[in-house]
Amino acid sequence: MALIVKKFGGSSVATTEKIMNVAKRILNEKNEDDKIVVVVSAMGDTTDELITLAKGIAKEPYLYTREMDMLLSTGEQVSIALLAMAFKTLGHDAISLTGPQVGMRTNNVHTKGKIMGIEPKRVFDELEKGKIVVVAGFQGANDLGDITTLGRGGSDTSAVALAGALKADVCEIFTDVDGVYTTDPRVVKGALKMQEVTYLEMLELARLGAGVMQPRAVEMGKYYNIPIHVRSTFTTDTGTIIREEYTMEDKNHAITGVAHDCDVAKIAILGVPNTPGVAHSIFSALAADNVAVDMIVQSIRTAETNITDMVFTVSLDDLAQAKKTADAVAQKIHAAGVTYAENVAKVSIVGAGMLGSPGIAAKMFGSLAEAGINIEIISTSEISISCLVEGTKVKEAVQIIHKNFFGQ
Amino acid sequence: MALIVKKFGGSSVATTEKIMNVAKRILNEKNEDDKIVVVVSAMGDTTDELITLAKGIAKEPYLYTREMDMLLSTGEQVSIALLAMAFKTLGHDAISLTGPQVGMRTNNVHTKGKIMGIEPKRVFDELEKGKIVVVAGFQGANDLGDITTLGRGGSDTSAVALAGALKADVCEIFTDVDGVYTTDPRVVKGALKMQEVTYLEMLELARLGAGVMQPRAVEMGKYYNIPIHVRSTFTTDTGTIIREEYTMEDKNHAITGVAHDCDVAKIAILGVPNTPGVAHSIFSALAADNVAVDMIVQSIRTAETNITDMVFTVSLDDLAQAKKTADAVAQKIHAAGVTYAENVAKVSIVGAGMLGSPGIAAKMFGSLAEAGINIEIISTSEISISCLVEGTKVKEAVQIIHKNFFGQ
Repeated sequence: MALIVKKFGGSSVATTEKIMNVAKRILNEKNEDDKIVVVVSAMGDTTDELITLAKGIAKEPYLYTREMDMLLSTGEQVSIALLAMAFKTLGHDAISLTGPQVGMRTNNVHTKGKIMGIEPKRVFDELEKGKIVVVAGFQGANDLGDITTLGRGGSDTSAVALAGALKADVCEIFTDVDGVYTTDPRVVKGALKMQEVTYLEMLELARLGAGVMQPRAVEMGKYYNIPIHVRSTFTTDTGTIIREEYTMEDKNHAITGVAHDCDVAKIAILGVPNTPGVAHSIFSALAADNVAVDMIVQSIRTAETNITDMVFTVSLDDLAQAKKTADAVAQKIHAAGVTYAENVAKVSIVGAGMLGSPGIAAKMFGSLAEAGINIEIISTSEISISCLVEGTKVKEAVQIIHKNFFGQ
Repeated sequence: MALIVKKFGGSSVATTEKIMNVAKRILNEKNEDDKIVVVVSAMGDTTDELITLAKGIAKEPYLYTREMDMLLSTGEQVSIALLAMAFKTLGHDAISLTGPQVGMRTNNVHTKGKIMGIEPKRVFDELEKGKIVVVAGFQGANDLGDITTLGRGGSDTSAVALAGALKADVCEIFTDVDGVYTTDPRVVKGALKMQEVTYLEMLELARLGAGVMQPRAVEMGKYYNIPIHVRSTFTTDTGTIIREEYTMEDKNHAITGVAHDCDVAKIAILGVPNTPGVAHSIFSALAADNVAVDMIVQSIRTAETNITDMVFTVSLDDLAQAKKTADAVAQKIHAAGVTYAENVAKVSIVGAGMLGSPGIAAKMFGSLAEAGINIEIISTSEISISCLVEGTKVKEAVQIIHKNFFGQ
């Protein structure tokens, strides 16, 4: 017997026909005594349609966050009712439960709720009765009993958190790709599907630009130590399993994956007098203006003058504010000036334990040198190395690094 | 200060524009310190659209009553979110609450739930904070916390019951007619709008074919003794107030209204030996087959033979079953035969205390005689007199009776 939580997104349940297909697939794959919980999102464009309705009332409906949650949560409620009905028409008993009904408790931040705890007694009760339990993703209730939604990536997060609270054997996330790849298959044709990847590596890949899984859901998997199986809606093949540790004896490759991120801008504050506290002045001002800084590099131009350049990266969305803040700070600390560049991108390699193998960094830098690509900034973490390169060169950078580490 | 519950049906909130209009109207009519609760139905055709979706999954979705309630209850949830948002955009604080959130407890009969009690603490709390409270009609929750719907007339019933539990001053039901009329205005141009009518008279009018208010809602008003104000969505005129007793000293007319019902068929079991228990044989057989009998008349043909004819009416829906049952019973009790007629209709007058005024019955029978209309069956209750007439003559019957009692 296995207890399995399966999550299907909006495109998998976009029509009643697709809902029937999801139900059939689940019944086909189910062993006699498996206990199955299915978490679903709203059908296809439902959420967008509801937002359009709200815009017929209010120019900025998201000002009314509690009412938006009341509105948007109906989308999943429709899906669960229909999917439960689908199981019943196929001869298997099933029951639909809303987020509040599965005991998904959140804080009181509407439209961006955080899960505070789950009391899934009702789910256990219904599983005991032999029913497939169909749960509305993306939603919960706060302490007042008001419906909240979990914001971006909410359905994946609900599913993994519920799997954790139920001590499920695995949480399967069904998606339109068949797993997690060593790099973006649109950039590298020979990208390889990973069999396994650790939570930490997956989080690092997501942070560095890989888009398959929402970091929140992966963090939830790590918290509960629930294996997450990312797999295809369209095939029955095994996908990629995200878990705490590798189960296979020998990991085939020195690194896990190559990520890239084009949502990067570079700002340089030039000719900064290198006095104590100057870095603090700059980055506390940026923090105060809500600018998230990613890579940071400080370089001494000449030891005699003790003048330094402070270079850092931000996301493109934050660039306008970052420039404004940097200009103000530069004046205050008597820096020579500020320059910025949008035509930059970040290429990264991720792999647990890579810091213990100095050859890996050298191999990455060597790959870029081989392709004649200049490195503007380098930054490292426990499990990753990132290089800022010219924006037009980033795909080439990913390709050569992938080829040198994965052979294709 | 007044506490007022206002109910708007699906056609009043069919579009976001109409929802804005409802909000504006309520704010225009609201006195500074009035406390307002608004009960709404699903927008326009939403319920039908949801049923169509369900039919994409199951041929007979109403077999899955719990899941239908989960599905259909989303319709009202969308309306309340949008209406609450509309109040907020107009500058008045408001909050939407689902049926479960207002403490509407029902029994466990899905799609046809009965209200078992209301614990509206949350409603009081929100009213205290100065908010307009927008409530989803038609829905509640059973003891498991599962969403139930109240079936036909459910939104009116929710509104009146909630008004009762809140000890509101009045429950206003907004509709596409501007009140309750002395008879169907499509039949009699000069039909008069009633200023007041008692719960009992209203129930009797509904039972006898008048269609303005669902009897369930009127019964709920009677139970809680809450005045129900039936009024127009399109004008601000006073409509008709349904209450326990008339408040005006002199009621203008001897009767309250004239109703008619064409959903009637007549069955006659002829030549029945008039022995004790014969009526019981006939009507217990019909009851066992779930046929509801309305008017009953027994007439002795001749005292010598002690042979009688048993004539009764049923609704057209029940006619096929009633004929089958009557044929079987007729054989068993050695009756001469069974005849039936579909071309009949019932015309009724309703008025509290009419039995104490014998002139009223005479005036009704006289009116029909004046128009040359034959009476096939007469039946009476405490507050009504009904005559079965030829189907083609029923409009004429309503017109002449209305003219003689109301002068037009």
